[in-house]
Amino acid sequence: MSDPTLVPRPITRVEGGAFERREDAVAVERALEIRVDGRTLSVTLRTPGHDAELALGFLAGEGLIASRAQVREATVSAAGCEDQPDAVEIALVPGVRMDWTRLERHFAATAACGLCGRAHLESLRAGLTPIPVERRFAAAELTALPERMREAQLTFRATGGLHAAALCDSGLAPQVLREDVGRHNAVDKVAGWMLEGGRYPAQGGVLWVSGRAGAEIVLKAAHARIPVLAAVGAPSSLAIDLARAAGMTLIGFLREGRMNVYGGIERLSG
Amino acid sequence: MSDPTLVPRPITRVEGGAFERREDAVAVERALEIRVDGRTLSVTLRTPGHDAELALGFLAGEGLIASRAQVREATVSAAGCEDQPDAVEIALVPGVRMDWTRLERHFAATAACGLCGRAHLESLRAGLTPIPVERRFAAAELTALPERMREAQLTFRATGGLHAAALCDSGLAPQVLREDVGRHNAVDKVAGWMLEGGRYPAQGGVLWVSGRAGAEIVLKAAHARIPVLAAVGAPSSLAIDLARAAGMTLIGFLREGRMNVYGGIERLSG
Repeated sequence: MSDPTLVPRPITRVEGGAFERREDAVAVERALEIRVDGRTLSVTLRTPGHDAELALGFLAGEGLIASRAQVREATVSAAGCEDQPDAVEIALVPGVRMDWTRLERHFAATAACGLCGRAHLESLRAGLTPIPVERRFAAAELTALPERMREAQLTFRATGGLHAAALCDSGLAPQVLREDVGRHNAVDKVAGWMLEGGRYPAQGGVLWVSGRAGAEIVLKAAHARIPVLAAVGAPSSLAIDLARAAGMTLIGFLREGRMNVYGGIERLSG
Repeated sequence: MSDPTLVPRPITRVEGGAFERREDAVAVERALEIRVDGRTLSVTLRTPGHDAELALGFLAGEGLIASRAQVREATVSAAGCEDQPDAVEIALVPGVRMDWTRLERHFAATAACGLCGRAHLESLRAGLTPIPVERRFAAAELTALPERMREAQLTFRATGGLHAAALCDSGLAPQVLREDVGRHNAVDKVAGWMLEGGRYPAQGGVLWVSGRAGAEIVLKAAHARIPVLAAVGAPSSLAIDLARAAGMTLIGFLREGRMNVYGGIERLSG
């Protein structure tokens, strides 16, 4: 595939009880470091492509530059290895001063979307110890989760208009469901509920999320030692890689009666 | 409404050429400051509710605490006024040390999702100078955008599996379309394209986004002086408030033949 935004990954498609091994294209998610005159400004997770635009647009959106004329050059370089971020080096026109203090206000408080700010993914992956396979889940029970989640949204008086995250026990009964405008916040709320009840780290169970499974959601689940992450939306390439490193089962496109399994198929029984 | 996650806002529903004024419930988005032993750790935008859980789960997900037993107390306090964040104060058990250096690595590089890290929304709103109404758009042309966007996704070889953002000119012709796993990144890429071509700030036009319109997307559009933001998904309460402060027209739930207008209706003609 020549499209840099997509990468092939082996998946298992489960539909109506049948397991089919195939290859699927998933969206690439990789770290990009934005440097200005040699100084690191930001490390963000993004889909490769148009990286100079991303860096310039980010600077403008933050009010750090006002026009392209303030920038001499934007140079994109791909990382030498998987664990290093790609980079965009912005060289300002001599004499142009960027107001770093605008950003220092940001630095004073970090982002809840934690991963964006981490300088190296290597350190993230290093912290993941694989979750052992202690319990298997029937595929048919997992593909019946959408129905249970609709019921859970009633039980927990969820609005349905927000991102939602829910923890199910090993019997797939929903234990808690939380909503938020931010996907990461909904997962943090579930983890906080686990902490409050002395249930953190988890002794099993499934984390269900209403949207996509990005790298950061996988990391939060891995930290909480939840062995299965089931998302209604698509996972990213990095989410798949991190889930494998964490020994997690990663499910995407979970719908009534079907799902794609991106890793950890050994936790599923037919 | 007693549900703290929803707030009523006046909207104009446009369908089949008819304009209907009504009230709609939108998801609340407000800043929350997370403090640990008096020191600010994070300011995040979230939907109110379960704020102690959010703070505790965030700390655990970042590897800063390992169990609830390390926390003496989590105290939630609502802000005294609109422009201040709400707060959760986490008091650690005496003797428990949190590894702030783990976070300092984060501080070294800020988040691309810029708003999360900003200590005060007041300063954001203060920077918004209203965009004057220089051109009106026919409602029927705007509700025909979904069709044009499907064509644009072909033109720009978009995968359709990612978040997308596109800039249309004043005649609603798509000028650029960018995709990314991150919603904010897609918008940054469009802004960067504008910068590269000497089109920043904008002289008009419409920013279309494939997902929700959160506060930060509105701020990026406002910075770029794009007068109309049209989202396929829902806007948040803060997005609506900021769009009004910026004199922008904010459209949500844009579908073939219908849309909701959350502010700046004066830019629309019937």
